[in-house]
Amino acid sequence: MDILRTTRALQSRADAVRADGRRIGLVPTMGALHEGHLALVDAARARADDVVVSIYVNPTQFNAGADLEAYPRTVETDLAACEARGVDAVFLPGDDQLYPEGAETWVDLSEITRPLEGVSRPGHFRGVATVVTKLFIAAKPHVACFGEKDYQQLALIRRMATDLGFDIDVVGVPTVREPDGLALSSRNVRLSEEARRQAPVIARVLDAAESAVASGERRCEALLHGVRTELAKAPLAEIDYAELRTADALAPVDAVLEGPTLLALAVNFPAEAGGTVRLIDNRVLETSQS
Amino acid sequence: MDILRTTRALQSRADAVRADGRRIGLVPTMGALHEGHLALVDAARARADDVVVSIYVNPTQFNAGADLEAYPRTVETDLAACEARGVDAVFLPGDDQLYPEGAETWVDLSEITRPLEGVSRPGHFRGVATVVTKLFIAAKPHVACFGEKDYQQLALIRRMATDLGFDIDVVGVPTVREPDGLALSSRNVRLSEEARRQAPVIARVLDAAESAVASGERRCEALLHGVRTELAKAPLAEIDYAELRTADALAPVDAVLEGPTLLALAVNFPAEAGGTVRLIDNRVLETSQS
Repeated sequence: MDILRTTRALQSRADAVRADGRRIGLVPTMGALHEGHLALVDAARARADDVVVSIYVNPTQFNAGADLEAYPRTVETDLAACEARGVDAVFLPGDDQLYPEGAETWVDLSEITRPLEGVSRPGHFRGVATVVTKLFIAAKPHVACFGEKDYQQLALIRRMATDLGFDIDVVGVPTVREPDGLALSSRNVRLSEEARRQAPVIARVLDAAESAVASGERRCEALLHGVRTELAKAPLAEIDYAELRTADALAPVDAVLEGPTLLALAVNFPAEAGGTVRLIDNRVLETSQS
Repeated sequence: MDILRTTRALQSRADAVRADGRRIGLVPTMGALHEGHLALVDAARARADDVVVSIYVNPTQFNAGADLEAYPRTVETDLAACEARGVDAVFLPGDDQLYPEGAETWVDLSEITRPLEGVSRPGHFRGVATVVTKLFIAAKPHVACFGEKDYQQLALIRRMATDLGFDIDVVGVPTVREPDGLALSSRNVRLSEEARRQAPVIARVLDAAESAVASGERRCEALLHGVRTELAKAPLAEIDYAELRTADALAPVDAVLEGPTLLALAVNFPAEAGGTVRLIDNRVLETSQS
């Protein structure tokens, strides 16, 4: 497994792989790899000959310096996990590679960054769009895989790739879950014991909404009322947002009509160390043709 | 000479050229080609095996719809000029190729866009940075050539290419001038007859500043006083700005010290059809090592 620490080295390697007629698959991560990330590796492997994982804790997508400092860094374990999963190359850039001295160029999107996560995390998506653009330029992939758990991020990257004209296939990979339904996240270990017991309520709420749509419910108000009622059964769960939006542009909707509709949730739970852990999850609701 | 009208076709062609081990040189233009543009073609030819000229009047870099409408469009003549100069391919995209429906992604820089042209053309450089990023992604060049006449644009594109990590050599090409010193520009034909006679004063002012620095003058105030005094000899010339700044980041300076210093001018002259024509020009002042 190759380990590359500079953008130029990664680009030279990409040029050589492409000259061989081989397809490159990129999996951008911030490290602290879990089975969710490794499912992205498998998805890239299925679509490419050469799988590159980038590990970079991107400072510009954090709102608070403390969060950036606290972000788990487990590079040795991550490299071992990549090696074991058959990754071909890992990109491990220093800050100077992605933000050279005096850097002042930003990639920003407008509408799609505003709702949901954008409300409580100003500037977050500007950081994401900027670093993913740089990773696309550095890795020159044919395909790039992102988790559906961070749905708004995936939608934003699809939009960015279309708008900037990247000839890169942006693939969304289904969320990996614990046996009790909780979506994998590096944040889960920070939940208090009782919060961890209650957290799977989120997945149950999404299942219930899906069932309601399958049974013919189309009204957002009714669906969101159901979400709140179900979540209230977990006394530690404190809802941040629950919204229904179009699945591509994340525009508001009044009802689940034709075309996929996103149900997105953010829920706070008590952290073991005090404070809260904010969990997000989502489901794309489809009305079956009848 | 190939003519390509879609981003995907240009990218496929670029992949094939690169697979052959040939270097691609890009010359981005808005058409209305004159000898200044063709000097960019020659510069690209000297550095690449395959020269691609893009012709696209980018709507997002115009401040007023009327300016966009009035911009000269001479595609047939431009294509003939490219063919005669040995260009390998011309990229002629429609708006939908560079701004797909619903496009909302912008590439923006901060400090370098603010002074000089940025003062009177808000949003102009955001449009430039966005479209050049898209052209870089579409054309996949090894080298891209831009005129030094639009010095701030060149500095911005260098900064953007460094920040985003493009492995593209951004080359600045010296300004091509009329025999009387006036920098070539598609705007020159709009000057009134008497304004055209007086316009070479700009080049004489730049020459004089260069001579003053060669003679030991370092003080900005003295140099700018000289600029204003010389320009005043052309009664139709109305100065918009005259500034000295660092040649890379365009930061303010108090004196011409070590390192290259930019002297940038914008001057208004009467247009034949009424109104004014705004001409820009510049000189990079170097203090010789003594």
